[in-house]
Amino acid sequence: MKMFVPLTTLERYPDYLNYLRDLDYGETDTISSGAIASALGLGEVLVRKDLAFTESVGKPRVGYVIKELIAALQGALRCDVEKNAVIVGAGGLGRALLAYGGFDKYGINMVAGFDCDPEKQYDVCGKRVYPTEKLADVIAEYGAKLAIICVPSQAAQSVCDNLVAAGITGILTFAPVVLKVKESITVRQVDLAANLAILASMTE
Amino acid sequence: MKMFVPLTTLERYPDYLNYLRDLDYGETDTISSGAIASALGLGEVLVRKDLAFTESVGKPRVGYVIKELIAALQGALRCDVEKNAVIVGAGGLGRALLAYGGFDKYGINMVAGFDCDPEKQYDVCGKRVYPTEKLADVIAEYGAKLAIICVPSQAAQSVCDNLVAAGITGILTFAPVVLKVKESITVRQVDLAANLAILASMTE
Repeated sequence: MKMFVPLTTLERYPDYLNYLRDLDYGETDTISSGAIASALGLGEVLVRKDLAFTESVGKPRVGYVIKELIAALQGALRCDVEKNAVIVGAGGLGRALLAYGGFDKYGINMVAGFDCDPEKQYDVCGKRVYPTEKLADVIAEYGAKLAIICVPSQAAQSVCDNLVAAGITGILTFAPVVLKVKESITVRQVDLAANLAILASMTE
Repeated sequence: MKMFVPLTTLERYPDYLNYLRDLDYGETDTISSGAIASALGLGEVLVRKDLAFTESVGKPRVGYVIKELIAALQGALRCDVEKNAVIVGAGGLGRALLAYGGFDKYGINMVAGFDCDPEKQYDVCGKRVYPTEKLADVIAEYGAKLAIICVPSQAAQSVCDNLVAAGITGILTFAPVVLKVKESITVRQVDLAANLAILASMTE
């Protein structure tokens, strides 16, 4: 059974997963949708709907077997599939992400970085930072499909074009510009300054 | 006129603003909702709806005066109001954000960082990194209302509690845990690894 999971649901799966993984649970321990909802500050109906897209089946008055639910969420997020990713732009943010250990739990290996500045082409936590000209070769070598763009805005579109030409199909970008890509490529943008500005607008 | 702007609309305002600011425009130049929609890959009706929440009024067959629209979007995002923000956790990500220049355009001054590790208590781009014990004093001194949490997950809730106690009302957190706060506090979470995992699930 393989279901299409709506994006808004998929975006909540890491929260469920982080919460469940931190619990102290045994082989057959269960948890109710109400307990999950309360811990995450979500509505119980929403939680039940979200989890209905997984392969884990909740039972009335018993709930979900925690171990099964974790496996189902990991399956939906494809944590069991090893994926290689690269980072373009080895400035402060790029280097911080190369050093970040949190990608492993989703089956993502951050394999290499790239920068056009020779002074930034040094290893970070054992990960090599290559000159940008090596982009296509290194991506092909690792079979990477995922990339993070950490370059300044004015360079982001051309980096994006090069990544797509090299076979990347999923791009996470921190540059505050809208990237133009063909339909088969998925882009997610994280605009850090905008996030803080929106927060400020909401907390007036 | 002050309207309530839905969050999904507010979240698109930085994209409009970044796009318009990059245009080469004169005092009275105009732009149509269609042109904006096409540049950003959005529907024209959506663009018109989004911009209807601003104080800028689009005219049929003429469009919006670019300069006015920028001012209206800046007003909605409160870019004209100076706001002080702090960062807790001066590891790689925290230091990268202390050095990041992109907050200015939203009127946000990143004034200081904090870390419990004496080895990380050194200035970054002229911004002081204080010992965490100084949190309440420094936040009070700057009247900061915004904070970014860049500490490991297990420390995030206690840092969050200390920030709230010190008067912070808006928190951007990178820790992959759901923070518990009272209703008057706004939290936005950016889970970098989860973002990449979601991207991977979408690009199978």
